[in-house]
Order: sequence, then C-alpha cells, then structure tokens
Amino acid sequence: MSELLTERSARIVAARKLVRRAGRDAAGLFLAEGRQAVVEALADPDGVSEVFATEAAATAHRDLLAGASVPVRLVTEKAAAGLSETVTPQGLVAVCALRDVPADDVLAAPPALAVALAELADPGNAGTVLRTADACGGGAVVFGAGSADPYGGKAVRSSAGSLFHLDVVRGAPLEEFLPGWQDAGGTVLAADGGGEVALDEAAADGRLAGPVLWLFGNEARGVPAELAALADARVRIPMRGRAESLNLAAAAAICLYTTQLAQR
Amino acid sequence: MSELLTERSARIVAARKLVRRAGRDAAGLFLAEGRQAVVEALADPDGVSEVFATEAAATAHRDLLAGASVPVRLVTEKAAAGLSETVTPQGLVAVCALRDVPADDVLAAPPALAVALAELADPGNAGTVLRTADACGGGAVVFGAGSADPYGGKAVRSSAGSLFHLDVVRGAPLEEFLPGWQDAGGTVLAADGGGEVALDEAAADGRLAGPVLWLFGNEARGVPAELAALADARVRIPMRGRAESLNLAAAAAICLYTTQLAQR
Repeated sequence: MSELLTERSARIVAARKLVRRAGRDAAGLFLAEGRQAVVEALADPDGVSEVFATEAAATAHRDLLAGASVPVRLVTEKAAAGLSETVTPQGLVAVCALRDVPADDVLAAPPALAVALAELADPGNAGTVLRTADACGGGAVVFGAGSADPYGGKAVRSSAGSLFHLDVVRGAPLEEFLPGWQDAGGTVLAADGGGEVALDEAAADGRLAGPVLWLFGNEARGVPAELAALADARVRIPMRGRAESLNLAAAAAICLYTTQLAQR
Repeated sequence: MSELLTERSARIVAARKLVRRAGRDAAGLFLAEGRQAVVEALADPDGVSEVFATEAAATAHRDLLAGASVPVRLVTEKAAAGLSETVTPQGLVAVCALRDVPADDVLAAPPALAVALAELADPGNAGTVLRTADACGGGAVVFGAGSADPYGGKAVRSSAGSLFHLDVVRGAPLEEFLPGWQDAGGTVLAADGGGEVALDEAAADGRLAGPVLWLFGNEARGVPAELAALADARVRIPMRGRAESLNLAAAAAICLYTTQLAQR
C-alpha cells in the first residue's frame, strides 16, 4: 500500500472504463463503491480482484481492509472521484467480476420468488428492485434485453448490497424465459395497472404460491403487450386514491411483499 | 402569445428564483413542469398564475393550453431550460401558488390515512411518497422541519401530479403534530426496521383501522428516536431475505398499501 495511484496510473485508467457498460462487458468487471458494497464484495474473495481506497477511506475502513484477501491500493482523491458516479465519492471502490448466471441455471431450479424486468429504464429502479426482491426472499432477478444495467454505479448503489445476494441474469430474451419458467412449473404474473386480477384476489386464490415470477415493465410504458400476453395473469394493485399509477419501485415493493406473505 | 420571452425577460428572471427553496418561500410560488403537472395545476385555476411554453410545447399541448384560463406565455428553449431541473426540459411550466395547509386544518378533521415525514432527505422520495399516499387514498402528507421540500422540481416531478391531490403541510413541529393526531383520536405508527410489531400483525389486530398516521424517517438514519417514542407503535416490515432494510419509498409503499387494504 505504498505507491499512491493517480488518475493517470494504468490501473486507474483501466478501472475508469468500467464506469461505462461497454467497458464492463468487455472486461467482465464492475465497480462496487462504498463500504456496504465492498463488505458484500469481499464476502466472496473469488469475485473481487482489487480494492482502491483513498488515504482517508483506508483509515476510516481500516477494520474492513485489514482482513481483505485481495490487494488494497491507495489512490488519490481525484482518481477515486473518476471511478465514482456520485457527487460525493466515498473513496472506496472494489473491482468485482460480473456475477451473471445463465438463464438456464435459474430455470433448472426455480426459486419460490423471482423477478423479470422488461425494458426497465432507470438504474436507480433496477437497484431498488434488486434490494426489494432480496428483502422479500427472492432468488433471482432477470434483466431482459434493453433494461438498465444492474452493474452501473447508480444501480449498484441503489441495490445496497443486494446485487451480491441474488442470482442475476442479463440480456435474457424474455419471450423465451417466461415460457421456460412456466414449463418448469412456475407461474408468471405481469404487473399491469389494467390487469384483470387484483393483487389481493391473487393472494386470496392461491396464485402466489410456489414458484412465482413477477414481470415488471418500463416506467412509462409498462410491460410490453406481447410479454403481458404470455403471463398466466395480469395483476393490478387496487388503488382508491386519485393517482393514476404507482412509481415502478413502489409497485414492485407491494407485489413482492404480498407474495412473500402469501408464501410463508 | 406573441412576444417570445428570453432568459433575460423580467418574468423569466423572477420565475428562475423559484428553482430554489428560498425563492419559492419568498414568493409563495413554485414551478410545475411537464404536461401531467400542468394538467393538474390548471384543474384549480386559482392556484396558477401563468404558464410558460416553448413554441414546440405550445404546439404539442395546444389542446391543453387552448382551454387555460391563465396567461400562456411563449418562451425560448433556453428560458424554459432555466426553469427546469431535468436533463431534458419539457418546455412546459406552470407557475403555481404554494398549496400548504396549516397543521391544525388536518388535525381538525383527520383523514383515515396520512403520512408524516421526519428528516426525509431525498426530493425524489418526497415525491414518490406523495404519489403512493395518494394512490392509497391518503388525505395528507406532513413534511416535518428539515425534510426535503415537496415543491422542488424533482419532488414535483416524482409526485406525478399527486402533489395537487393531497393536503400538504410543511415545517410542522412533529413533536407537537403527533400528540395532536393522537388527541384527535388517531393512531401514530412509526416505520422502524427494529419495531416491536410486525406489519402483518398490525393489520391482523385492527391497529390499522381509523385515522392512521404513518411516520417515516430519514433514508439513512430512520425515524428520530424521540419521535419514534411518541408513536403508538413502532412497526417493522417482516423480511425473510438477506437485505438489511428496504428503500424508504419501497417501505412506505408496503405500509400504505397494507393500511389501505385493512381500511376497506
């Protein structure tokens, strides 16, 4: 931990490429920033190649870094800022291997609860849905082609560590994954404000038992019609107020929590 | 609608001050951007003083603006961008009167469901909680001192129009409002990951009936202990996964939806 890496150091230049999706996919790596994410990352040493820390962060997180089984490299504040997508960089970043699993792995042993995302646009929502799915005991989150990247800085931060707890599938063709889930004995429920089944009815009629895949769509356009048509049911959240709809992450929280309760 | 206002026009210079909280409070006005917000604003003509629109927006929203009972002023793209907090300004902004109601008005006739926010930091969360409270039939949202301002651009946008549906109270001393709610016959429930009552138990034991005020706290620190102590109960959302906690807006969605169901 002697040499102080600057923004021009080869390692930092290489790591900066991971701020962009193309760079992540080319290297097979992503950046996990902040103490919570680094703690989760270090729990699986095989998934981490190195940790960058400013001198201040190395001091503040000495307890954590002393036990790290990967190299911890001191970096300048400016170098750390270049690896961060936040206004207030935390000075602590782990370089991690992408954690994708193949869709077939999920279908081979479907968890009781999983989520598929179709054309989800907002990285913050991607991370929040990961966090909520984790909290509700979900086993996998499948990011369909065209969805936000769960490995982007904002998504990783919003997931609050949950990215490291769940199976993540990326780029799966959902028009194949949904029938695959059904063939494996599971139920597919599409969240749809105009759905024919109310969520509380779905909970009462046993539809939320055993492997359930919730399908959420784009923040503005909802679930694509051709995918909604593949679902076993389109489920609406009953509302009594004047709001036309719920925020996507709020809707997902209600659906996943209701499913968790029904599956106890 | 003849003269095209630029960023140097007196009206635009005045409106730009509303982008900051101090400017809003001094003028008693705020900006509502985008079609959805402007539709809601125009539903109460007394609450709107003028609408600014770029030529493109005036054309795109001709149907809406033709029926407006307040002046519609054409502005340059640059002037519109100066009134926006978004990366892609929508070119359509209404100048609206602040909609605060006194805390005593809410206490005089407590709605069946309301929300109080203690030190909520994120404006996006402020708007999302407004939207969720509206969707769940809530009647009021009380922003305690130190909370994000519901009239900021990001909060207005996240509320998706719901800001115009509910009673909004700002700057209320919650250490007085909570006992006031209880004196009015209502129940105060503090959302707290370490709470002594589980949400499903609260739903089962009838605690969610009758005027319920949900208290949510800061995204990182939760509900301040001195306020949590005033609540009738501290309620946790039962979780079975590995996530330590839920995102604040997700937690609020689960609590408010559960309450709505219990109150049907």
